[in-house]
Amino acid sequence: MSWEKNVRKVEPYVAGEQPKDPEIIKLNTNECPYPPSSAVRVAAIQLADHYDRLRLYPDMDATTLVNALSEYYHVDPAKIFVGVGSDDVLAMSFLTFFCGGGSVLFPDITYSFYDVWAELYRIPYVQVPLDEKFELRPQDYISGAGGALDEVVKKTGTEPGGIIFPNPNAPTGVAQPLEQIEEIIKSNPDCVVIVDEAYVDFGAPSALPLIDKYENLLVVQTFSKSRAMAGLRIGCAFGSEKLIGYLKDAKFSFNSYTMNLPAIMLGTAAAKDASYFRDIVSKVVSTREWFKKELTRLGFEFPDSQANFVFARHPQMPGAELFAKLRDKKICVRYFNKPRINDYLRITIGTDAQMRAVVKALEEILG
Amino acid sequence: MSWEKNVRKVEPYVAGEQPKDPEIIKLNTNECPYPPSSAVRVAAIQLADHYDRLRLYPDMDATTLVNALSEYYHVDPAKIFVGVGSDDVLAMSFLTFFCGGGSVLFPDITYSFYDVWAELYRIPYVQVPLDEKFELRPQDYISGAGGALDEVVKKTGTEPGGIIFPNPNAPTGVAQPLEQIEEIIKSNPDCVVIVDEAYVDFGAPSALPLIDKYENLLVVQTFSKSRAMAGLRIGCAFGSEKLIGYLKDAKFSFNSYTMNLPAIMLGTAAAKDASYFRDIVSKVVSTREWFKKELTRLGFEFPDSQANFVFARHPQMPGAELFAKLRDKKICVRYFNKPRINDYLRITIGTDAQMRAVVKALEEILG
Repeated sequence: MSWEKNVRKVEPYVAGEQPKDPEIIKLNTNECPYPPSSAVRVAAIQLADHYDRLRLYPDMDATTLVNALSEYYHVDPAKIFVGVGSDDVLAMSFLTFFCGGGSVLFPDITYSFYDVWAELYRIPYVQVPLDEKFELRPQDYISGAGGALDEVVKKTGTEPGGIIFPNPNAPTGVAQPLEQIEEIIKSNPDCVVIVDEAYVDFGAPSALPLIDKYENLLVVQTFSKSRAMAGLRIGCAFGSEKLIGYLKDAKFSFNSYTMNLPAIMLGTAAAKDASYFRDIVSKVVSTREWFKKELTRLGFEFPDSQANFVFARHPQMPGAELFAKLRDKKICVRYFNKPRINDYLRITIGTDAQMRAVVKALEEILG
Repeated sequence: MSWEKNVRKVEPYVAGEQPKDPEIIKLNTNECPYPPSSAVRVAAIQLADHYDRLRLYPDMDATTLVNALSEYYHVDPAKIFVGVGSDDVLAMSFLTFFCGGGSVLFPDITYSFYDVWAELYRIPYVQVPLDEKFELRPQDYISGAGGALDEVVKKTGTEPGGIIFPNPNAPTGVAQPLEQIEEIIKSNPDCVVIVDEAYVDFGAPSALPLIDKYENLLVVQTFSKSRAMAGLRIGCAFGSEKLIGYLKDAKFSFNSYTMNLPAIMLGTAAAKDASYFRDIVSKVVSTREWFKKELTRLGFEFPDSQANFVFARHPQMPGAELFAKLRDKKICVRYFNKPRINDYLRITIGTDAQMRAVVKALEEILG
């Protein structure tokens, strides 16, 4: 049947395994090892008490959720956007902000959805190599600095159409200094710069304070990691009122109601419980610092991570082998069979007990 | 700042008013007047009991929800797709199925998002006029029948890139006979035909049984109307395994996890309660039939509706005036200031008591 000629055929994304065996220690998708705030449980009971409200469309502005974020971050609600996970926010941002025809720049080693969205929307893009320490070179994103951006302009004859990078970067965990990030934003007033801060709460400096200074900056965050709510699908973005306005216009023209009532109710409860949030983040950070010392003791090499994972390799064992041997011991981590990083494992930080089990397993594997 | 030159600027969609005054009778967005199944309340309590599961990513295949739909409709799970409301399913379908470059055909009076999605994705489209009774003329969608499709082929030199229409149509409520729909699907093996069945449960014949016969047919439905769950955002699509496979590939490459845990849990509970579902649908239908008689008695003209709304005009009063006068009496209906339909009101079917109040208000307004 020739209807297939009209079909967009894409390489499906392969997500990290979601193992069904409850004995498996799951450290492969950067989830939080702790439950969400107990305020979320209370909100779920309220949802049950008012389940009749589900018959109505939800509040398309997700007002209570936006207001809770506004209070916590001291940001005007008009500068906040929410979506179905940061993937939704980012995909909508590609569609909205990167459509001028110029190439979009992002690192060669980075979140694996960027190139997929660019291809889906037919946006030209350039993957800029990180340096040998997996650090981003600011000069690659600054005009006249003799880096990748200059080459792109020379080669394509057009100015760049946008810039995006995570801070800290994934899957490396490397954080860039805020001054370098500001330099990149300041040097690119002609395109939108997106800083993807999915992991920022675990120790990197946030670019959030810069949104009042630079109209072209979008900061994207998520409830999936530091707020322990991957199952609720909430992402958010912060930017100038004008920038957020464009994003809302595009989103509402596409699908008016995406945040369902449970996401709004439970998400609001989570956003309001700041002390629990700080508590679990600090537990993850202290476990990570302990785990880094253990990895060093075992001979691992890794860039210094400011995220809720560590990206490490061992000089004595290929990444694929280490991955398989850990899996045999019912420990599930993430392995990327890609150039430059195919000897590395991305290991999510779990509870102290889980990470002790990982260290024990690594000791056994490495003899 | 010239970053704005790279921004996609769209005309934001204006959704039906969501009035805050609880005294208002809200009949403007085709919501169900009855609460969801009480099984949904039980599922919300289970969510509260297991709120710790929210820390994990949800099942990207929404298996329990898909299986519940599979059981109810006797359709293989591989032929079912679920998304964040039927808007999400439809937008994803435009992106996946209508990208061959040929024009997509849909009625001139129809769901107001079709042209918006086509423009967003830069898909050429043709709006085919309904006849004077707001009925779709099958010959307009069949090659060699001397209708709109032939004209499009002649004018553009390309075959059509896709066909979409709701059945029953919105905002008219008019249902097409299934034989006509089958004729359209059968005559267009070279493109995907989408039948948008958002309102089908209220009396129109579903094209669902045809998915085993035609590989190019996609049937889209929603939980927002007949299952009283607009607040949960669940839409679903049925089609050949191949068609659904393409849709899943596109969706997973775009955003792996869109159905959050509450949507999966509460949606599954709703989908399993078939008897309650049939019960509320039959209540809405019997109220609608009573309301039609009352409208006729009051001198209204309207196409025969098979949906949970009636699309009516009164020869003695312009639509805009009638709309405003009902609003003054705290009754909120939908008015579209568009050619051909600007004298009509779309009135959602509420409870018997609500519809009696509408009839009383109309009697007062019309003297």
